[in-house]
Amino acid sequence: MISSEYTKDLCIRDCDAKIVLLVIDGLGGLPHPETGKSELEAADLPNLDALAQSGTCGLISPLGPGFTPGSGPAHLALFGYDPWKNEIGRGALSALGLGLDFARGDVAARINFCTVDGEGRVQDRRAGRISTEEGRKLCQILQAVEIPGVELTVRAEMEYRAGVVFRGEGLGDQVSDSDPQITGVPPSPLRSLAPGSERTLEVANAFLEQAAELLVAESPANMVLIRGFGRYPELVQMDEAYGLKALGIAGYPMYRGVANAVGMDVVEVNWDLESECVLLEERYGEYDFFYMHVKKTDSAGEDGNFDLKAQLLEEVDACIPRLLALEPEVLVVTGDHSTPSIMGSHSWHPVPTAIVGKWALADAANEFSERGCAEGSLGVIPSTSLMALALAHARRLNKFGA
Amino acid sequence: MISSEYTKDLCIRDCDAKIVLLVIDGLGGLPHPETGKSELEAADLPNLDALAQSGTCGLISPLGPGFTPGSGPAHLALFGYDPWKNEIGRGALSALGLGLDFARGDVAARINFCTVDGEGRVQDRRAGRISTEEGRKLCQILQAVEIPGVELTVRAEMEYRAGVVFRGEGLGDQVSDSDPQITGVPPSPLRSLAPGSERTLEVANAFLEQAAELLVAESPANMVLIRGFGRYPELVQMDEAYGLKALGIAGYPMYRGVANAVGMDVVEVNWDLESECVLLEERYGEYDFFYMHVKKTDSAGEDGNFDLKAQLLEEVDACIPRLLALEPEVLVVTGDHSTPSIMGSHSWHPVPTAIVGKWALADAANEFSERGCAEGSLGVIPSTSLMALALAHARRLNKFGA
Repeated sequence: MISSEYTKDLCIRDCDAKIVLLVIDGLGGLPHPETGKSELEAADLPNLDALAQSGTCGLISPLGPGFTPGSGPAHLALFGYDPWKNEIGRGALSALGLGLDFARGDVAARINFCTVDGEGRVQDRRAGRISTEEGRKLCQILQAVEIPGVELTVRAEMEYRAGVVFRGEGLGDQVSDSDPQITGVPPSPLRSLAPGSERTLEVANAFLEQAAELLVAESPANMVLIRGFGRYPELVQMDEAYGLKALGIAGYPMYRGVANAVGMDVVEVNWDLESECVLLEERYGEYDFFYMHVKKTDSAGEDGNFDLKAQLLEEVDACIPRLLALEPEVLVVTGDHSTPSIMGSHSWHPVPTAIVGKWALADAANEFSERGCAEGSLGVIPSTSLMALALAHARRLNKFGA
Repeated sequence: MISSEYTKDLCIRDCDAKIVLLVIDGLGGLPHPETGKSELEAADLPNLDALAQSGTCGLISPLGPGFTPGSGPAHLALFGYDPWKNEIGRGALSALGLGLDFARGDVAARINFCTVDGEGRVQDRRAGRISTEEGRKLCQILQAVEIPGVELTVRAEMEYRAGVVFRGEGLGDQVSDSDPQITGVPPSPLRSLAPGSERTLEVANAFLEQAAELLVAESPANMVLIRGFGRYPELVQMDEAYGLKALGIAGYPMYRGVANAVGMDVVEVNWDLESECVLLEERYGEYDFFYMHVKKTDSAGEDGNFDLKAQLLEEVDACIPRLLALEPEVLVVTGDHSTPSIMGSHSWHPVPTAIVGKWALADAANEFSERGCAEGSLGVIPSTSLMALALAHARRLNKFGA
């Protein structure tokens, strides 16, 4: 069951039970060939294991058996939206996360500052990873681009990354990327991928042409690559779907983006756990639902750094008492998807999950791990079911039918 | 998720990881009332148990809880096609399996040679199980049938079974069977079951009329029963859906039929395990995906022969090292459906499954059996999800979304 499609008429709106959803990015792993233990099994996680013992456990599958999700679909599934039907372009997620003025009808895209040679061939797709400060300066320069009939906002993200929002009539988002993914060749010409995006193609080409002129004297970042065109997503908002006033706590902009897309308030915060915990504690009185995102576990998995991922899990574990001290009605600990260090990438493996609260059955799961949670009583369920379970355990859902 | 509906844009086409899918027909069973052990539990299966221990296990359900499939739907589900939406008449499967010239617009049906008495009442629905050679001779005779505007091909299958393909204008497949299923009564009159099949009714009646005349002097096979009308199936082919060059290895023609319907190459082979293993070994370099079908386990279950089924499972077990010696990236061992010997029929019970490969989590399942695999981390999943899982474990699927 896709939670957001079933809860609207059942959720209880005048309820003050609070839900904390802790999302440990790339949580699931696989055993290290030398020890036979996964990252979660190798780490010392007394607090998470205690949650597994006292809560209801299981595994959640973002897209169904076998399918590996990107971060966008994985989070939409967690938040109870059909990830197959609601694709959000990465540019749109970035724009939302950056807090850009981004609204219905607008199209956003991601920008990389890059270095091109005299022939226009890409020498460095990241312009030597320029500083965030340098990126901000360059975005100021690009703000001078003028396209008739179009309002345009450029905003720096981190290092060489930025986002752009185009506002105007008739803008579709089916436009290909200019990033050639390799060096030594010119940027790829943009193409319109479907009818209705011809105007966006025109606008984006004008943007690239003027950007080349505006940046010609800069070094090393003398050009931009553009990719991930996406329209403003139109998703039922969490207050309507679930009756929740929700806060998204995520240091990394893209995750604020997806949180914002489903109607959460978001505020900028550093992406260390301490800063996120402080923000949660400070704003705890103001909201019903808190999505707290831990990014670094996924990055360690992607880098194939098994030991670092295990160590970061221990750091997350140490935060659990702070979350419990807030006494939420329901605490859910899970991940958006698996990122086994031995694979060095996102994977399809279902994700360990514990639901803790007064109405959660303590089941056979004794360890917060892939195999531990497989012993739990939830079974393997779609990630899209998790929000309904969280609401239920908070007693925020009425029964259906008499 | 129906695998074939989601993988087309995600599968990696230039990949040489190989997948072997071993399908043990009617695999699942139920405990013998005297011992409390199922066929799988009673048999000594050291190799299959080792796969369960090293692989990811679970149970697969062909049609969803409670529904018992025929062989066609069960196999379509295994291959990742919606078995509820893609019904293939058994005649069509037979025709495909026999390698008959069978194409879009044609209708096929199955024939049983039978014995009728002087009054036209069926005395033996299988004509004393005549030899395959005798069947071939009779098919030659039937090839003399002439129906204006229709091309017709009759081909012997095994013993008293044969297939017929009708080619002509306006042929639907909604025609009832003439097989009365009991003896002592005449064949059932054919009926058109839906508009668009009137012409097929006419053609089939002409065929039966002439068959009666052509076979009148034969003994014991002096008539035919006709059943399982089916049009040529139109399914997305495996190379398009999955990016796989696939070989179907099945001694029994109908299973070659369903393999061929989804785009696998098929070659005739005896239906003993040795012949199938040799074929797999000989052609291993030429394909990405191998479907290998073991028929006899199902027949033993249908015959209610518990001990024979257990013994046949031990024979399958002995082949496992030969499959592993090929070092496929992924080995999947499962069945199309359950056929508990104590029921003597197909059943709805979900089917034990093990996925073995580098990226498969060794879970709590220690025994390759109904109850052993229920301990696995896959849970109970639709059979239609298995192909996506096999592709994922072969790292043949890109992630969905950014």
